[in-house]
Amino acid sequence: MSSVTPKLLPATPSATNPPMMIGDLLEAGVRMAGDNQIVYRDKSRHSYKRFQERVHQLAHMLSAQGVKAGDVVAILDWDSHRYLECFFAIPMIGAVLHTVNVRLAPEQIHYTMEHADDVFVIVHEDFVPLLEPLADKLPLVRGYLLCQEDTAEAVDTSLPLVGEFEDLLSQQPVQYAFPSFDENAVATLFYTTGTTGNPKGVFFTHRQLVLHTMGEASAFQAPGFELLNRDKVYMPITPMFHVHAWGVPYTATLLGATQVYPGRYEPEMLVKLLVNEKVDFSHCVPTLLNMVVSADVIASKQVDLSGWKVLVGGSALTQALASKAWTLGIDTRSAYGMSETCPLLTADILPRDIAEADVETQLPWRCKAGMPMPFVKLEVVDADGQPLPHDGVSVGEVRVRAPWLTQAYYKEEARSEELWRHGWLHTGDVGSLDERGFLTISDRIKDVIKTGGEWLSSLELESYISQCPGIAEVAVIGITDDKWGERPAALAVPDDANNPPTIESVQGFLEQFVAQGKLNQWAIPSMIRFVDEIPKTSVGKLDKKRIRSEI
Amino acid sequence: MSSVTPKLLPATPSATNPPMMIGDLLEAGVRMAGDNQIVYRDKSRHSYKRFQERVHQLAHMLSAQGVKAGDVVAILDWDSHRYLECFFAIPMIGAVLHTVNVRLAPEQIHYTMEHADDVFVIVHEDFVPLLEPLADKLPLVRGYLLCQEDTAEAVDTSLPLVGEFEDLLSQQPVQYAFPSFDENAVATLFYTTGTTGNPKGVFFTHRQLVLHTMGEASAFQAPGFELLNRDKVYMPITPMFHVHAWGVPYTATLLGATQVYPGRYEPEMLVKLLVNEKVDFSHCVPTLLNMVVSADVIASKQVDLSGWKVLVGGSALTQALASKAWTLGIDTRSAYGMSETCPLLTADILPRDIAEADVETQLPWRCKAGMPMPFVKLEVVDADGQPLPHDGVSVGEVRVRAPWLTQAYYKEEARSEELWRHGWLHTGDVGSLDERGFLTISDRIKDVIKTGGEWLSSLELESYISQCPGIAEVAVIGITDDKWGERPAALAVPDDANNPPTIESVQGFLEQFVAQGKLNQWAIPSMIRFVDEIPKTSVGKLDKKRIRSEI
Repeated sequence: MSSVTPKLLPATPSATNPPMMIGDLLEAGVRMAGDNQIVYRDKSRHSYKRFQERVHQLAHMLSAQGVKAGDVVAILDWDSHRYLECFFAIPMIGAVLHTVNVRLAPEQIHYTMEHADDVFVIVHEDFVPLLEPLADKLPLVRGYLLCQEDTAEAVDTSLPLVGEFEDLLSQQPVQYAFPSFDENAVATLFYTTGTTGNPKGVFFTHRQLVLHTMGEASAFQAPGFELLNRDKVYMPITPMFHVHAWGVPYTATLLGATQVYPGRYEPEMLVKLLVNEKVDFSHCVPTLLNMVVSADVIASKQVDLSGWKVLVGGSALTQALASKAWTLGIDTRSAYGMSETCPLLTADILPRDIAEADVETQLPWRCKAGMPMPFVKLEVVDADGQPLPHDGVSVGEVRVRAPWLTQAYYKEEARSEELWRHGWLHTGDVGSLDERGFLTISDRIKDVIKTGGEWLSSLELESYISQCPGIAEVAVIGITDDKWGERPAALAVPDDANNPPTIESVQGFLEQFVAQGKLNQWAIPSMIRFVDEIPKTSVGKLDKKRIRSEI
Repeated sequence: MSSVTPKLLPATPSATNPPMMIGDLLEAGVRMAGDNQIVYRDKSRHSYKRFQERVHQLAHMLSAQGVKAGDVVAILDWDSHRYLECFFAIPMIGAVLHTVNVRLAPEQIHYTMEHADDVFVIVHEDFVPLLEPLADKLPLVRGYLLCQEDTAEAVDTSLPLVGEFEDLLSQQPVQYAFPSFDENAVATLFYTTGTTGNPKGVFFTHRQLVLHTMGEASAFQAPGFELLNRDKVYMPITPMFHVHAWGVPYTATLLGATQVYPGRYEPEMLVKLLVNEKVDFSHCVPTLLNMVVSADVIASKQVDLSGWKVLVGGSALTQALASKAWTLGIDTRSAYGMSETCPLLTADILPRDIAEADVETQLPWRCKAGMPMPFVKLEVVDADGQPLPHDGVSVGEVRVRAPWLTQAYYKEEARSEELWRHGWLHTGDVGSLDERGFLTISDRIKDVIKTGGEWLSSLELESYISQCPGIAEVAVIGITDDKWGERPAALAVPDDANNPPTIESVQGFLEQFVAQGKLNQWAIPSMIRFVDEIPKTSVGKLDKKRIRSEI
């Protein structure tokens, strides 16, 4: 904040200035498209008007169970209409929605539920076996509400269930008098896992989610994007526990889009819903998109997905994947964000001239992270925190400010300050901004080498070295250097262990990339060591931690 | 605010949570469409990037003239690129933009400028003669900045000018370090005139204008509306001093639309710009639209305006005018709001089935005020403040809550409390909501008769009585009644003064509307008086004030 003194004028005593509440998004959606549908697998469908009634009923049910404002309510469910209702009803009564990551190990799930102080749990029958052994260690939890796909079948469990979701819901009145309260109240809480330490809780307020939604609504309706509006059909393929499915269910609701929730992600069901419900727009990680486009029925064009728009995030969309999707008529685009950022920071809304260009011109653009959303201030900074030019080549850490960034890790003071040092949220990603302000993410910062005040991507350098004749595999790390801070060092596996290339020949090979302007002279490693094997993690990734300790 | 206690969590000390600032809208627009144009008449055009630079230069210029945060800066100009720059630069330095209504009488202009405590004035050369006699009576004003169309010609004036807009602007650096401050700081101030008393000042904060803009951006991009985006060309035909041209210049900037400012409204110039700049979207009052569609060149289709979208507000769009526009290919729609409401409350986004129906079905829908914008709570209430059903016939006063309503009349305590009684902003308009939540405005409340706790529109009753054979003209007012509160009374001019219809025959004639369900039985006036002439105001409207005193 600056020291200027602008004019503040008092409101007349009777005036109201409503806070930004998540409930406003639902009201707007019902007005815009009250008859549009919320679809759950091949099991149920109902209108927005009924969706609104169910949110009111859910609020009554939670209140009847003693859930109050300020309480944290956990949900473990597949993507469903119920989950969507929880997105609204729980924050709307002033409680906090804890979207439990059901893919974590049981002890991590227990850690997050205990750390979050969950007092009430909504649990799909599939996750009952997971929770049973944890229940004793969650003494704060006052009740478990079961979600069943078919209520006729009784569930045999030791969990102290209070009843079944549909059963209890159907008994409630359809009008709840939702309170209005401080827009800075916490609405959602969930956990993000890093490579080290316990999962970290991030949380978002009503104000933050409303602003994020308005930003998304503005961007997602833009020409050259046109992902969502009341005439579109939306189906997430990013779990709802993962950063509120990127916040898109809120945006889809505001705009009145038809919404399809696929439950557990099963390839056949996903394809069936994509086709039968005529889904226009989904979002997912590259791995999932790759699975879809590689599926036999899709790749062979037995099933036609042309016209389907897919926003890809989580990790970089490659040109190969974008191209493969393109040949099937699938319109892919990138977005960038993270758990700490609600998540959306940038979206790949193509400039008009690019959108009108041929596919070869478009592909690289479709793989950029995109332009910052309204209200997002995004900088790429060097090791001293100085903003770098928008030249498409200067690479540095991405840091951001926006009105929807988690203001701390829940009950983690030191890690919170580390995240927010110097008043900017540090994404831990490195990338570059081009002349048009489009961001390209190249690396995680922990894989970047800081040498002589400059950033050097180890992934990039690995890619160049791997092209050198006689080299089978390579790993690059930074090693401490008195003069330069860090210098790149390479571990390489030769094709022929008995006849490795010389260090000079590798360095000589890299000179061509220097000549082409792709690499700086100082990026050529002086230390190159030939080894028989490079340490790897259990999932086959380079184990840079071990490499560092071994070099 | 309710008494619930939601969860509030502290931010880590280093975290930032940026306030909503008007400057964010400009930044987003430049990112979205940096090369799109801002056009001023046939005089100038430049890119969004240059627009942004000019805003920075204007901020430097104002600072150099001693304008500080908290100061009120007045502008008297036609719609121009300069005015647009003032929309941003003045609030962005923390000062308050006072958009002076140049159509007021000089003494009213003086009243508003004195009441607003203006300290600096930006004035177009056309308004210099207007200000000259007022300057002595505005002792707070420290300087006048002249806007000239052609700087070669010197202006001979007694006003203490500090220089010419373009002259001074061009000398400034193109980068200004705009401060960040409380989003509740006042950004704009202007005056609205009623039928009685002094003009009333209304004011809007950064937060309010940003939220209003986000709401407009969401609605204006909706299918069936599609008024604004980066591929559209926008030209206001509502003056920028009139409720920030409905806030649309802010929305157009956020979305990166091409913007055309027509200067002084001259029919030839307007048509020239509409055609040459291929304007997609404008907004105006019905009178102005009627002027356009009645102009010879348009009506004769010498000039083709088909595809032009026009949002009509200020007073009701009639079906006759909508139909006339339709035959010329002009796509009209309604919106509703007022100076006190920033202004947008409702927008006429057609439901899909209506948008796909034939013109006869569409026309009445195109003349409704529309559905409430996101975040707007709008009720139609009876005389006791009880919300009326959404049945399309129950008529009551429209009252609203939204995050962008003026929180008071500036320095007018009593009138502020009257506006905001019971915590709702009272629009003074009466209307009805239909089953789909669409608002139709039927009357000003002062023209409505409150009888037996029910509302009766005098305009509607006049319309029915005027259809009675033998009646040439009629005026209906409410008269005090001990039993009913008020009862309708009619003054009627017979076709033949010597042979007026009987009171009973008029009452009998009205029975058909009762039978058709259009009128309530109690709405039939018991007092009907035949007169030679009905009192009228100087502009030919029924003078209800005099009628009331004479009946």
